[in-house]
Amino acid sequence: MVRCPSVTPADAGALDVLVGALEPLGFTCHRLRFDEDGTPPIDNLYARLGGAGPNLCFAGHTDVVPPGDPRDWTADPFAGDIIDGKLHGRGTSDMKAAIAAFVAAAARRIAAKGAPAGSISLLITGDEEGPAINGTRKVLDWLVEKGETLDACVVGEPTNPNYLGEMIKVGRRGSITGHLTVHGTQGHVAYPHLADNPLPRLVRMLAALTAEPLDQGNAHFQPSTLAITTIDVGNPADNVIPAKGTASFNIRFNDEHTSDRLKDWIKRTCDTVGGPYDLKFRVSGESFLTPPGALSALVADAVERVTGHRPELSTTGGTSDARFIKAHCPVVEFGIVGQTMHKVDEHVAVADVERLTDIYEAVIDGFFAPTGGTAA
Amino acid sequence: MVRCPSVTPADAGALDVLVGALEPLGFTCHRLRFDEDGTPPIDNLYARLGGAGPNLCFAGHTDVVPPGDPRDWTADPFAGDIIDGKLHGRGTSDMKAAIAAFVAAAARRIAAKGAPAGSISLLITGDEEGPAINGTRKVLDWLVEKGETLDACVVGEPTNPNYLGEMIKVGRRGSITGHLTVHGTQGHVAYPHLADNPLPRLVRMLAALTAEPLDQGNAHFQPSTLAITTIDVGNPADNVIPAKGTASFNIRFNDEHTSDRLKDWIKRTCDTVGGPYDLKFRVSGESFLTPPGALSALVADAVERVTGHRPELSTTGGTSDARFIKAHCPVVEFGIVGQTMHKVDEHVAVADVERLTDIYEAVIDGFFAPTGGTAA
Ligand SMILES: [Zn+2]
Ligand SMILES: [Zn+2]
Repeated sequence: MVRCPSVTPADAGALDVLVGALEPLGFTCHRLRFDEDGTPPIDNLYARLGGAGPNLCFAGHTDVVPPGDPRDWTADPFAGDIIDGKLHGRGTSDMKAAIAAFVAAAARRIAAKGAPAGSISLLITGDEEGPAINGTRKVLDWLVEKGETLDACVVGEPTNPNYLGEMIKVGRRGSITGHLTVHGTQGHVAYPHLADNPLPRLVRMLAALTAEPLDQGNAHFQPSTLAITTIDVGNPADNVIPAKGTASFNIRFNDEHTSDRLKDWIKRTCDTVGGPYDLKFRVSGESFLTPPGALSALVADAVERVTGHRPELSTTGGTSDARFIKAHCPVVEFGIVGQTMHKVDEHVAVADVERLTDIYEAVIDGFFAPTGGTAA
Repeated sequence: MVRCPSVTPADAGALDVLVGALEPLGFTCHRLRFDEDGTPPIDNLYARLGGAGPNLCFAGHTDVVPPGDPRDWTADPFAGDIIDGKLHGRGTSDMKAAIAAFVAAAARRIAAKGAPAGSISLLITGDEEGPAINGTRKVLDWLVEKGETLDACVVGEPTNPNYLGEMIKVGRRGSITGHLTVHGTQGHVAYPHLADNPLPRLVRMLAALTAEPLDQGNAHFQPSTLAITTIDVGNPADNVIPAKGTASFNIRFNDEHTSDRLKDWIKRTCDTVGGPYDLKFRVSGESFLTPPGALSALVADAVERVTGHRPELSTTGGTSDARFIKAHCPVVEFGIVGQTMHKVDEHVAVADVERLTDIYEAVIDGFFAPTGGTAA
């Protein structure tokens, strides 16, 4: 899989490799290609072993971020070289190694104890690193349409910051981006009464938005944060008052907020400064939490048994496709170490891939053990 | 002169036209070419009629700002067409018509009463619309070197906003530009504790700089103003906290401030916000005032006699080369109507050029009248 340069939106044969491993194990594979108007077509896969419930799903993505200049890499980013016990390549950490580990875990389970009394499935998208329009969301819609049910889901994102066993994610903060444009009237600095400078209002709005913490965090979440990411005017003339100024900001918010309530608060805050302005919002996801319970305990126990570490149940970090799956079934995220994800010389320790396979096998066994059907 | 396309730094023959008019009147003409390292050479002119004091100087510039696309103009910007009683062309208002009017006034005075008991001089630069490095300042240095003294100076900038006789300038506000860079540490918005966002500090500094008026103005000056002219970060990624942000601002300040005291105030204001930042300043000129007195009364009386309007003694508007001359002698500014200066279809009414000639002739006569020597 690493040898397929599957930079979003390209599949580059990655799903063929996966299907080639799953079909011999008895999985029924559905190749699902979506292409909403104007977006490049994306290849996705839903594979299921068994027809009965409960259905334990593993979710992930075969697409990867671009490698940048390959000459900056120690090894060819799409060669899959193993150097000093480390598998090098773009997408090894995020997250082809986890997909391979889960397939190997399923194969071992089937070889050791036969197919489980229930179903094992994989939901693999090629559009996680991209706009996420033709990926997991559309596959989930397709599942609903076909009457397919997921009962629990493990997402294989690289959740461990430094070492395997460090962290399980049981939720994620939401993300909303705001684009603010403040309007005024252009003029000459020597005649400011003939102009209306939008920039003092813009800086006051931004100062007000960043004046106070949004909250203090809670038992499951860090405090919400607002980051001004850019402010741009682009006026090269020191003697000209510009007609407008723009700024963008991103809020990562916990479950004490919703994107709608935050939009209201942002508008009210800008209104206290006043004057003409435009606000555009893009919501990447609401915050969500799978409250610690049977599923997180099952995964945490498996992690501890294999690694000796009791993983933290965390909600830190960026968004993931778990935000879409959350509406369908309980979901936790656990994968490999993410230290080099999206970086030059991305790699994973081969020993970690082996141990992650053991962890996933323990999760499958635990899920389908006599009490497993209630793990969700 | 209008037919010479003397866009800074080009002279394009404009000074030749002037010398061709002055030498027959008896003026001794000094062509002064300066070219400080790395700057384009600039042609300037100092012309003097007579050897004795007092020396009444007329100061101005033959260079003009670019016309832009000539197709936007009603008439060729360098043809000097007269249409419906208006002389069209780049530089007619700012300020070739005033130079011509002064030369004509001197010629009429000489024809009517002979050369005055004293001297008439012209200090004409080709670098007023440009960086003003190789222009008036260098000519003034040359005058000092040669032992030449100016006793009073009229600058021919277009001081009248709407109609001839509206306004004399007796001073100008100073101008200082600040370039502020606030430094932080780049990072991902999902992990703000690993980053240090410079933008909340930048907006707080700018909000503090614009929180209060700098002063309330005084008898001779409008209130000082601070205009933020640009803020730029240029970060296209909504999920990245940038490493730095920059802003520029310009202060037009009256005689209640000096640029040095303003620099101190700006630094103290930024320090109250704190964090690492750089500040660079460019001072275009200190504020100055020729307190209303004999010279301004002489010009105002001449204006009123010719136009019927009592001109306002003002310190509004941008900077001019009067800021350099102020150190040498009393200086006031009076020229033609500036409504179309620096614009497409720049033009002056021919009748205004005639009346301006009458005004300048009255100023010359008044200056050299029995009490004229004390007009300064
Ligand atoms: Zn990923
Ligand atoms: Zn001018």
